[in-house]
Amino acid sequence: MFTLTSIDGGVCAPQGFFADGISAGMKPDGERDLAFIHSDSICSISAIFTTNSFRAAPIQHFLKKSIESTNFILINAKNANAMTGKKGLDDVESILSHARSLFPQIENPVMSSTGVIGVPLPKEKIKKGIESFDLGKRDAKAASKAIMTTDSYEKEVAFEVKIENGKSFRIGAMAKGAGMINPAMATMLCFITTDAAVPAGDMAEVLKKHASTTFNAISVDGDTSTNDTVMLLSNGKSEVYDKEAFSFALEKVMHELALKIVADGEGATKCVAFKVTGAANDEEATWAAKALSNSLLVKTALYGEDPNWGRIASTIGASGVECDPEKLTIKFGNVTLYEKGEILFDKERETKAAKVMKKSSFSIECDLGIADGSFTAYGCDLGHEYVKINADYRT
Amino acid sequence: MFTLTSIDGGVCAPQGFFADGISAGMKPDGERDLAFIHSDSICSISAIFTTNSFRAAPIQHFLKKSIESTNFILINAKNANAMTGKKGLDDVESILSHARSLFPQIENPVMSSTGVIGVPLPKEKIKKGIESFDLGKRDAKAASKAIMTTDSYEKEVAFEVKIENGKSFRIGAMAKGAGMINPAMATMLCFITTDAAVPAGDMAEVLKKHASTTFNAISVDGDTSTNDTVMLLSNGKSEVYDKEAFSFALEKVMHELALKIVADGEGATKCVAFKVTGAANDEEATWAAKALSNSLLVKTALYGEDPNWGRIASTIGASGVECDPEKLTIKFGNVTLYEKGEILFDKERETKAAKVMKKSSFSIECDLGIADGSFTAYGCDLGHEYVKINADYRT
Repeated sequence: MFTLTSIDGGVCAPQGFFADGISAGMKPDGERDLAFIHSDSICSISAIFTTNSFRAAPIQHFLKKSIESTNFILINAKNANAMTGKKGLDDVESILSHARSLFPQIENPVMSSTGVIGVPLPKEKIKKGIESFDLGKRDAKAASKAIMTTDSYEKEVAFEVKIENGKSFRIGAMAKGAGMINPAMATMLCFITTDAAVPAGDMAEVLKKHASTTFNAISVDGDTSTNDTVMLLSNGKSEVYDKEAFSFALEKVMHELALKIVADGEGATKCVAFKVTGAANDEEATWAAKALSNSLLVKTALYGEDPNWGRIASTIGASGVECDPEKLTIKFGNVTLYEKGEILFDKERETKAAKVMKKSSFSIECDLGIADGSFTAYGCDLGHEYVKINADYRT
Repeated sequence: MFTLTSIDGGVCAPQGFFADGISAGMKPDGERDLAFIHSDSICSISAIFTTNSFRAAPIQHFLKKSIESTNFILINAKNANAMTGKKGLDDVESILSHARSLFPQIENPVMSSTGVIGVPLPKEKIKKGIESFDLGKRDAKAASKAIMTTDSYEKEVAFEVKIENGKSFRIGAMAKGAGMINPAMATMLCFITTDAAVPAGDMAEVLKKHASTTFNAISVDGDTSTNDTVMLLSNGKSEVYDKEAFSFALEKVMHELALKIVADGEGATKCVAFKVTGAANDEEATWAAKALSNSLLVKTALYGEDPNWGRIASTIGASGVECDPEKLTIKFGNVTLYEKGEILFDKERETKAAKVMKKSSFSIECDLGIADGSFTAYGCDLGHEYVKINADYRT
């Protein structure tokens, strides 16, 4: 038995974690653009990175150093340090060396970047920014604001997890998302901290397990960035660990942040769960659900609040999964519009389905009627704001 | 040796072909919405259909009847007759029987539909419309207008092909496209007529051959419809055939119409050729080129005329093909922005590349530097008009 309680504090909620976000002059108007997470004792770290072949320099640095423990993560927005070659990698090393020289307690520092691809990192600005860090600060909100790019609000979550005998541990996290969110690992950064005493062997296992149903189940625009990163840091300060409770709490943290990312997709006004059931197997269900969450025609119909079930059917048909019009059922919320070959869509159901679509969050369910495969993908609508944001991102 | 001359007349340019488009009351304001193509002698017919599992009723009808020859094609807009089950198929048969009863010369009639999915066909309106047909009319333009959905202009092309000894044949075509245009067969209808005496064995072969580099190389929004159809009709009236000349002319007809479809993509302002060279093989080049033409981030950058080469690189990297930042070169038109690990992008090149992007048609070239695989995909930008059209298509 265990209980979860939502608490404040984001990445600083667990014992021993510190964070802050400052302005290093990369974002206009003195907005925060450089953050750190620091633990006063060494953490085990496990990370999942983008599947993009052109992984950004900070990811290359992490992998090259085979980092398994750290007490300091530096995160900058506005510049992805991707496609920057050897210079990009040198910049990471030079910046992290500078941090170590300023703060001798830093061990195995890690960097993470997000922003424009293919522009050299403003190294000197970042170095100067680090000089103003106070590693004793616990301003998780400032850190979560600093890592935002086109996000419209900061994304934080934290839980206290009580297990037996009054023992408890905490888990906190922050994320940024907004654009380039896609099914093969969303374009996003997410940093999860915990004072649970997670054994090193469990770190990667639980992180990977929950990624497939959370961050890898969401889509804003189907693009996979060069910088996607999820990091889990455990400093063990609570001296408490319960695998089941930790796994549950981690899944909840990742799921909540994943939904926040979709809901804050560039220009998004709705977060929609595409539940595919009855597929030949889970893989086909995943494929079909992601086809729905990525379809431009579906996304624009969501934006128009148009219960165009034909586009749902057509997308399922085009997805390449085993399907049969005589076995397919399509529901918008609890309104069935098509059932096993029969069109139930009429004026009354259209009105009801349109009402479902006015909500900021709802589900579209497709039962393929073939076998037992199921998967839920999360997506958002695509409207004028998306075009506006992305037609003019660099400027 | 052969020469091609562009001529007027669309599908009626070849000898013996007739066509017209009338209003059957499906489109508002008495716009044309029902068309026919008729030949005064029997034609060989070859067709390519959508890969969508939920093929529309008229396609099912064609395949069920194993039609190999015909002299009459009926085409309606506004309703796809897709996801309409047995009733949809019965409607096709009932409508075509009615046509045959009115015009006894009709043999093996074929139907083709485009429009909204999942709404029963307005059968009586169509039957009434057929009653007003004059099979002796040669108004190809009226036919090409009648098959439009969200197309902003009709798409026609025709050529006279002169071979040796003063002999010649003609080829004409019309198409509709606009939305749901995708790489695994564009959502589109295309009807090609010729008086060349094409042997039945060559019909399917040449049609299939050119589909991969024309209609299957274009993308507006990555969705594959239930109704995609390309039909080739040959009545042999010229008694002339030269395989090389015919194949060349057919490719030109299909290529021109494919580009017209992209250029008239919903809300599109630019038609862009994504040329991928140096890939591990042609298949990987195709994959990478289509990833570029389908990327929302690339499409919105095109709309914003933003030479964001980093999005091009990131999309290549995310496409799953073999690639290496040290071997990759990216050009916008003739302006190289990134070359084998080196960022050449600077203020001067940015200005030059932005100038390239102001054109209504240009190329983005990616040389992967791996081996000899190449493919060119054609895509368009995505702007506010796309959202506007698709958020409100049914109403």
